[in-house]
Amino acid sequence: MEQQAARSTAEIEFVIEAEAAAEMMKEWGVATAPELLVALVPAALRLARPPISNFRVGAVGLGTSGRIYVGVNMEFPGLPLHHSIHAEQFLVTNAAVHGETGIRCIAVSSAPCGHCRQFLQELRGAAEIQILVTSDGPDSAFLPLSSFLPRPFGPPDLLHKDHPLLLEPHDNKIALLHDDEEAEAEAAGCGGICNGIGGVVEERLRAAAAGAARASHAPYSKCPAGFAVADSEGRVYAGPYEESAAYNPSLGPVQAAMVAYVAAGGGAGGAAEAYGFVAAALVEPEGVAVSHEATARVFLAVVAPRAHLKVYRFHSSAVA
Amino acid sequence: MEQQAARSTAEIEFVIEAEAAAEMMKEWGVATAPELLVALVPAALRLARPPISNFRVGAVGLGTSGRIYVGVNMEFPGLPLHHSIHAEQFLVTNAAVHGETGIRCIAVSSAPCGHCRQFLQELRGAAEIQILVTSDGPDSAFLPLSSFLPRPFGPPDLLHKDHPLLLEPHDNKIALLHDDEEAEAEAAGCGGICNGIGGVVEERLRAAAAGAARASHAPYSKCPAGFAVADSEGRVYAGPYEESAAYNPSLGPVQAAMVAYVAAGGGAGGAAEAYGFVAAALVEPEGVAVSHEATARVFLAVVAPRAHLKVYRFHSSAVA
Ligand SMILES: [Zn+2]
Ligand SMILES: [Zn+2]
Repeated sequence: MEQQAARSTAEIEFVIEAEAAAEMMKEWGVATAPELLVALVPAALRLARPPISNFRVGAVGLGTSGRIYVGVNMEFPGLPLHHSIHAEQFLVTNAAVHGETGIRCIAVSSAPCGHCRQFLQELRGAAEIQILVTSDGPDSAFLPLSSFLPRPFGPPDLLHKDHPLLLEPHDNKIALLHDDEEAEAEAAGCGGICNGIGGVVEERLRAAAAGAARASHAPYSKCPAGFAVADSEGRVYAGPYEESAAYNPSLGPVQAAMVAYVAAGGGAGGAAEAYGFVAAALVEPEGVAVSHEATARVFLAVVAPRAHLKVYRFHSSAVA
Repeated sequence: MEQQAARSTAEIEFVIEAEAAAEMMKEWGVATAPELLVALVPAALRLARPPISNFRVGAVGLGTSGRIYVGVNMEFPGLPLHHSIHAEQFLVTNAAVHGETGIRCIAVSSAPCGHCRQFLQELRGAAEIQILVTSDGPDSAFLPLSSFLPRPFGPPDLLHKDHPLLLEPHDNKIALLHDDEEAEAEAAGCGGICNGIGGVVEERLRAAAAGAARASHAPYSKCPAGFAVADSEGRVYAGPYEESAAYNPSLGPVQAAMVAYVAAGGGAGGAAEAYGFVAAALVEPEGVAVSHEATARVFLAVVAPRAHLKVYRFHSSAVA
């Protein structure tokens, strides 16, 4: 009874270390890590942010490292729905920004949509990822992703089998064009960020966005990109662009940075206006197939209208 | 042999009337309509426009009316990949703008991605839509969508069972706010469109976009919208916003209008710059959960930078 009560009111973080997970299993009387994932879904649901649909989705996944990653759905009123982040995408991106190299099993509150089943194809061994849908009730069981998306279209249709997949190490060559950068800083007339945060944060934002671009998974367009945001206390959160072989389920760098931001406790207000970051940086190649700048500005105008965005570009020829 | 040659070089339209399909079956020695769909896939592939991936996809579907609809993938360099249109989405939207009420079976060149399997859930009787993947070779067979996306998430999870689905008649209440409209025309200082097309086309653009908004499928956000474009000869093409229960696979009104435009022979150049429409209109509700205006401007800036966009709004309270 006590264990049940503890579960039903538990507040959890978006990342649970392996040791903390082991503690929790003891405390809650749960025998296996997959069972713990299931037990954590109600707590994950409470972290969802779906102001448009009010349909909460929570997903909890076990990484190869033994860490547990939480994912929730996020919606942004005033923007087209493709800005939405699904719980499963949040989970995978949360794992990516924490250096995780694989996901073994996922418990999720509702049947994953086709978009997410497709996005998950970007992981090595996707077919064997075990998924349990808690809304299936007492009969729910872990079943392989291959049973949710048989006969898939995916990376093997387009990439060499040795090409790194999502959550595997990437090292895209990103050499920023310093001329552009200096010109823009001058144009801004205040060293770039005018809101009192100052140059040190600006440097860190750029470095974080460049790091995310370096780690980003963009084998289809060959346009790696990264996005970073800073809060008013100078903390920086960055996310890598994550492409899908099927194109549309790709997660943009802005969305990935939102995952990093929220997973670290940012924007706790929940409402779109409450995100409250004050500056942002985008790193992307110049003049190529995929550019996120204009869309990032559309997003910021709605979600964080006072955040100043700086864009840094690199020669696309540098991309492997 | 002659029949084989006719097939392999056939040029087809995006819509094939039932009578023309019957002719074609005779001419090509094909016994059934589903077999004709398969025979048409190579011709459909030649109509694809994937300048980023160079991965052509063609889909051919049979409507309840007996008409055949073709779909191809379209990609737009310089924009995020969520602007891409998949062949299956093109096919369904092509059917929608031609007043089709159902799709019975589809032959497609590659395995449908999860995003498309999800989008197709918006059709009544989705589970029973028969799909054949021609790249499966001689063993390929028509199989129900339910075998491609088992245990789906879809409209039944969110809507009353009697709610109209995609391809079923919608009659969203759209009463444009005339004040806004006049104010914008004045601000433009030239009666709205300044490129010599004149007021008559502007009227028709607005009416077409409003008609598309009226017919649009937006039960999840309750934000119906429509988009229309006009070419330099004053022809107008419109597309309705089409939502997915899973949000991200929704097809925006701009994309739907591109389908209408291309399906009618527009933008025959194929390259992004070759779309060549000169004016556009967007109809959407004011101040609500989903707005397409900023994203439409991002799209136009890349695909048709000289096209003037007018936006018309209506009271969202008018939406059922
Ligand atoms: Zn999903
Ligand atoms: Zn697709």
